[in-house]
Amino acid sequence: MMTQEAPLETKRDEDFNKWYNEVVEKAGLCDKRYPVKGMNIWTPYGWKIMSLIDSIIRSEMERTGHGEVCFPMLIPEDQFAKEAEHIEGFFGEVFLVTHAGENKLEKRLILRPTSETAMYPIFNLWIRSHADLPLKVFQIVNTFRYETKQTRAFIRVREIHFFEAHTCHRDYEDAERQIKEDLEILANIMDALCLPYIVTRRPDWDKFAGAYYSLGVDTLMPNGRALQVGSIHQYKENFSRAYEITYEDENGEHKYVHQTTYGMSERLLGAIVGVHGDDKGLIIPPDVAPIQVVVVPIYTKETKEEVLEACRWCLSQLRDLRVYFDTSEDRPGVKYYRWELRGVPLRLEIGPRDVENRTVTLVRRDTGKRDEYPRDEVSKACMGLLKDIKKNLKRLAEKHFIEKTKSLSDLNEVINGINRAPWCGSEECAEQIEVTSEKSILGIKEEEEGDCIVCGKPTKEWVYFASTY
Amino acid sequence: MMTQEAPLETKRDEDFNKWYNEVVEKAGLCDKRYPVKGMNIWTPYGWKIMSLIDSIIRSEMERTGHGEVCFPMLIPEDQFAKEAEHIEGFFGEVFLVTHAGENKLEKRLILRPTSETAMYPIFNLWIRSHADLPLKVFQIVNTFRYETKQTRAFIRVREIHFFEAHTCHRDYEDAERQIKEDLEILANIMDALCLPYIVTRRPDWDKFAGAYYSLGVDTLMPNGRALQVGSIHQYKENFSRAYEITYEDENGEHKYVHQTTYGMSERLLGAIVGVHGDDKGLIIPPDVAPIQVVVVPIYTKETKEEVLEACRWCLSQLRDLRVYFDTSEDRPGVKYYRWELRGVPLRLEIGPRDVENRTVTLVRRDTGKRDEYPRDEVSKACMGLLKDIKKNLKRLAEKHFIEKTKSLSDLNEVINGINRAPWCGSEECAEQIEVTSEKSILGIKEEEEGDCIVCGKPTKEWVYFASTY
Repeated sequence: MMTQEAPLETKRDEDFNKWYNEVVEKAGLCDKRYPVKGMNIWTPYGWKIMSLIDSIIRSEMERTGHGEVCFPMLIPEDQFAKEAEHIEGFFGEVFLVTHAGENKLEKRLILRPTSETAMYPIFNLWIRSHADLPLKVFQIVNTFRYETKQTRAFIRVREIHFFEAHTCHRDYEDAERQIKEDLEILANIMDALCLPYIVTRRPDWDKFAGAYYSLGVDTLMPNGRALQVGSIHQYKENFSRAYEITYEDENGEHKYVHQTTYGMSERLLGAIVGVHGDDKGLIIPPDVAPIQVVVVPIYTKETKEEVLEACRWCLSQLRDLRVYFDTSEDRPGVKYYRWELRGVPLRLEIGPRDVENRTVTLVRRDTGKRDEYPRDEVSKACMGLLKDIKKNLKRLAEKHFIEKTKSLSDLNEVINGINRAPWCGSEECAEQIEVTSEKSILGIKEEEEGDCIVCGKPTKEWVYFASTY
Repeated sequence: MMTQEAPLETKRDEDFNKWYNEVVEKAGLCDKRYPVKGMNIWTPYGWKIMSLIDSIIRSEMERTGHGEVCFPMLIPEDQFAKEAEHIEGFFGEVFLVTHAGENKLEKRLILRPTSETAMYPIFNLWIRSHADLPLKVFQIVNTFRYETKQTRAFIRVREIHFFEAHTCHRDYEDAERQIKEDLEILANIMDALCLPYIVTRRPDWDKFAGAYYSLGVDTLMPNGRALQVGSIHQYKENFSRAYEITYEDENGEHKYVHQTTYGMSERLLGAIVGVHGDDKGLIIPPDVAPIQVVVVPIYTKETKEEVLEACRWCLSQLRDLRVYFDTSEDRPGVKYYRWELRGVPLRLEIGPRDVENRTVTLVRRDTGKRDEYPRDEVSKACMGLLKDIKKNLKRLAEKHFIEKTKSLSDLNEVINGINRAPWCGSEECAEQIEVTSEKSILGIKEEEEGDCIVCGKPTKEWVYFASTY
């Protein structure tokens, strides 16, 4: 009902934006015809991929001792306004509930754009002593931002499917340890999605509203644009002072907690679409593919029963995988095309000759390579190939990422990708970099010594800059 | 952090409401201190139970071919208002978004109280021909209603965790088949939760706004009040006419689809708390218990290592279950109390004597019965006992339900429970029943012949009435 059976009209590298919109629609990831701008409908296939991404996040959170919570979606306006920078950073883009039926509410309510201000007054109640620390919770919810820029499925929307972890610690050092753990969790998530990425510290003028410092996580789309898919913030005591979140230490002293947050959004799915897709459609990393193996029987009237029987036997061997048996009446070619478009990593074909030889034919979505395997080894073969597809997707994406990352010694060398250059730390030189390159600064990393690309001052800080979403 | 270590003060049968509030808080199901009335915080233990309930619903939906979707939370006011009865039924209790930042929105937006009006304009686009039917989708989301009555955790809240299935069919008969399937799904869900229930047809004046008819699903709390936990609606063409959802049949004729919905909410958790709990706290049905078996080691300094070792061996045997190993420094008695309060169905104890005899001691939460088992059979024993606990919880709840359901021949015999009586079908007699009994009519079932309890007219319809939430 929700997807269309026609090949892609657009080549990915000819018009990336058009290709992106087309594949999102034709592969059935979401429907953009909902009559509120930037609010799309998650259709079953897209929602299933997102749910599998959520599962990976959830298991990482569980592994590291975060409790899953779900806070209310509405935040009283006065509670929202307690941290001065935060409110300044967000107020322009929040949706406000003012009425219930025809009654005007006494207190206006805000649709959460993120949940600091919903959670922190409650953390104040939950935390009494050092024994309550660290407090580590997360939630996976939808958040709301009144985006005024052009919207794009999964990348810039007004209702955002969002994961947010919030932690409280006894001191700055423990909060820093949390951020190290977050980076490890991030590595595991990005490995499952086969996405290369870079983590940089956002410049002070671009950090999250209320943060002490912010780390941005960026990946790179094929059109050379960086896509921020996550962020990690060290809040220090900025919020705990505003929301009075204190604990009693071993000596009976009351201290403010140090806080961190870590968030990622449905942009992860946008990145999967862009980074791995090709002219035939999606290529979904095996760990999050709703269908890891599609079984396509190839038969004539005479051979139908024996072919279907052989397929069913294979299905019984593949119980540990997510498998779909396409028994529709369509021609095999139509089925190939359909599941290629939807990015199913592996296709298993069985025809009369396979029945005779007790073989199966396996076709990889990433390379198109087809090979025969003994039917008795079908499970082992599928497992092995899926592992290999994951490795290959990661390798290809990393190759592209590295090719499109360049160290500059002159601002004229700027490329359509991620540029890096030594920078002295001054806002003037940063502005010069952005103006000359016509790119935006993603963030900063401390690396080898160099001379500021603008003023020549020696420095160990490098800025990374690119066109961004 | 979120739960308190003190025994329950209230006995369930002395003050049920107080007991309910106390157990919800002390077992750590939710935190009611969020500063918006009727919007509570799901804390990890409660959220985990709810998520397990959701998983059961999800697998039932998958089994019956429903696709999972996620529609936007905000509904344009004009779209909401298309079905006249529906808007009339809901408008007083919807939250309205009127502003984004300080800008007034051109079109006001409604926080979904339920998703008919979000989905149906899109069904109009998804459905073209009879080949697109039946369309079966569901979503698990939070919905919003501005309740004016007294709120109560999980039972009457303003942000409601909600499952809703929506289906479209070629004709009334196919929609009726769907409702039969819904009743089967319902039976499976209620079996997993060990909850007895009754399904009745709501009287016409009390059906869902926009429905052709509504079925209510009620269970019974220990205080004799009926709790509606779900509903199933036959919409016929009521919504498809308002939202122009048509299909082309085999003869090229355009016809309106027939629609149904099926919804259940977090009230299922409220029912679990009330129906199964006792003076010690929760008793969670094994299928949805976040911890199915808690392992409690009992040791002295000398025996600690061998006892822990024996526990770890048992853990390795129980990989298919959800098990928690309580290695905290608390005394065993404190641990017993803690996990009894939280309703863990089975406790596994190992002390030095168990180590010596290669045994384990298993204690059931439902009966308190403790028995020794050979350690080598620990997995089989746990599986068997969990199965038996489920059976027993179901049996006890059903026994109570039957005891508290009474067929009346006179309205003076009314009990504090579910009453049933023959009824002629007239609104006057129904009103008489409600006024005299001081109960509310749940709904109607066609059953054996009898004489209307008010006017004496012969009838096959029975009304069910009770105090309700």
